[in-house]
Amino acid sequence: MTPFALQPASSIEIVEVAPRDGLQNEKVLLPTADKVALVLRAVAAGAKRIEAVSFVNPRAVPQMADAEAVMQALRGDHDLRADGVVLVGLVLNRRGLDRALSAKIDEANFVVVASETFNQRNQGVPISETMAQIADSGAVARSAGLPMSVTIGAAFGCPFEGETPEAVVVRLAAEAVQAGVREIALADTIGVADPLTVERRIAAVRAVVGDTPIRCHFHNTRNTGIANAYAAWRAGAATLDTSLGGIGGCPFAPAATGNIATEDVVYMFNRMGVATGLELESLISSAAWLSGKLGFAVPAALSRAGDFPARAKAA
Amino acid sequence: MTPFALQPASSIEIVEVAPRDGLQNEKVLLPTADKVALVLRAVAAGAKRIEAVSFVNPRAVPQMADAEAVMQALRGDHDLRADGVVLVGLVLNRRGLDRALSAKIDEANFVVVASETFNQRNQGVPISETMAQIADSGAVARSAGLPMSVTIGAAFGCPFEGETPEAVVVRLAAEAVQAGVREIALADTIGVADPLTVERRIAAVRAVVGDTPIRCHFHNTRNTGIANAYAAWRAGAATLDTSLGGIGGCPFAPAATGNIATEDVVYMFNRMGVATGLELESLISSAAWLSGKLGFAVPAALSRAGDFPARAKAA
Repeated sequence: MTPFALQPASSIEIVEVAPRDGLQNEKVLLPTADKVALVLRAVAAGAKRIEAVSFVNPRAVPQMADAEAVMQALRGDHDLRADGVVLVGLVLNRRGLDRALSAKIDEANFVVVASETFNQRNQGVPISETMAQIADSGAVARSAGLPMSVTIGAAFGCPFEGETPEAVVVRLAAEAVQAGVREIALADTIGVADPLTVERRIAAVRAVVGDTPIRCHFHNTRNTGIANAYAAWRAGAATLDTSLGGIGGCPFAPAATGNIATEDVVYMFNRMGVATGLELESLISSAAWLSGKLGFAVPAALSRAGDFPARAKAA
Repeated sequence: MTPFALQPASSIEIVEVAPRDGLQNEKVLLPTADKVALVLRAVAAGAKRIEAVSFVNPRAVPQMADAEAVMQALRGDHDLRADGVVLVGLVLNRRGLDRALSAKIDEANFVVVASETFNQRNQGVPISETMAQIADSGAVARSAGLPMSVTIGAAFGCPFEGETPEAVVVRLAAEAVQAGVREIALADTIGVADPLTVERRIAAVRAVVGDTPIRCHFHNTRNTGIANAYAAWRAGAATLDTSLGGIGGCPFAPAATGNIATEDVVYMFNRMGVATGLELESLISSAAWLSGKLGFAVPAALSRAGDFPARAKAA
């Protein structure tokens, strides 16, 4: 086996994705006020970067139909920018980017799926067309001063096409950087990545994206999500997407747990001495609040098992 | 951060512990015949080393009161030794070792807990007395030709004393090797280890145990179990304890999930191209059988989410 370059850092950035990727895949439709409260609870726990909404077809994703209203409330009543909080909006095309700009988003996150079948189903166009839109939108975003990141979906496996070749992911990452995006994310959309492949794939992408930061997005569908998060940190990923409570099941993997849970990831990094900027007790408290809103116990382990050592000892 | 020595191997040994550590912490008392069937199902899935029973006080652990009957059935009706299957029995003292020898066990696994309070509660004596019994029993086991391993419990944290110092674990490991044991196991008894500490602690133990193989035992209480398994493999651990279905909650961590699940661990290593010798579909099938016997859905993820890619594609 090959040894890998190790670039473990003493801190890692967390993007809280419960308000968008988390809620989007839950059946319960939360009122706008609860979505706003969820974002503000993340901020209170220390989150500085939050995927707050998506600007997609409201018929396809009813949970996100009130994206503009959520952003209006967040922009109207709170001075999050002064606190250094970045609100991210997911967009799939130029129309979504225009909506994001109007809604005063701080960052647009584009998506391309590393599988023709999945990209066609998710966005209605071939990968080449999505990449052309990314290049086009990248120019618009730059002139508007809006940072743009790209998430490469199904970067480790596809429910329709099986294994995702590393070469496809590497090619899309290189093209995205050429289009001017500021960050590349590798997303294990259906929860099939393993930690060794995570390390290898990050190293392969790193080789073509230069200094562009790499973010990773994992689901805990097959219990490898936290291992993948560890491997990503070990391989030099700067940022991880996590979801409060671990909400966000995948529509293609029924009965599976969702995103890796923010509180579980923060617990692990706390134990490792790696800073996240997030407060575990605040996260656990908000996960309980979210459980109440959604009507089920969230899958995160920390909410059940609690911190270790006990808070008083750790302080 | 320090880079660590990497010794990833292309295979890893799995010890199936559901019949002992798994069942011991479940409320449902299984009949002897079901315990025998569980061991044989593990064998059918490819397991070559199985923690089958413990020889402890039956009043303290009612689930293991029929240890002799389980072994008699396994020795009477089946020629497991001819198939290269090693049956392990857990022992806490010399009396347990004598019972293990009478029951024709293939390997005795002693336990010492790396916390005075926990060792006293678990075994009724101080650590020094347990280590003296290990030395005494080691001589007896050697003259009987019985391999003996030692598991160091609470090697990453203790419910009574908090953090477990690395130096205590290293000292116990060195003393156990001097006592003639053939394998040292580090057990995260209450599920508080993180993968970085796992890598560091294995390296520290390795420095004092020479070529003695290192085994690890993790619980998934705080969702770090699979990450710890990955880290252990990465750091050169030869063997992992896993439990079919992930059964085996900890009495000191109510509502927490149990041992890392055999099928989840095998799935991860399959995806990594690391051989375990175990068949995933057989494990998933037996986990469903075990769910029926215990009367609840086991916590393993693979039983819910299924293999990837689909079996036909992977073959």
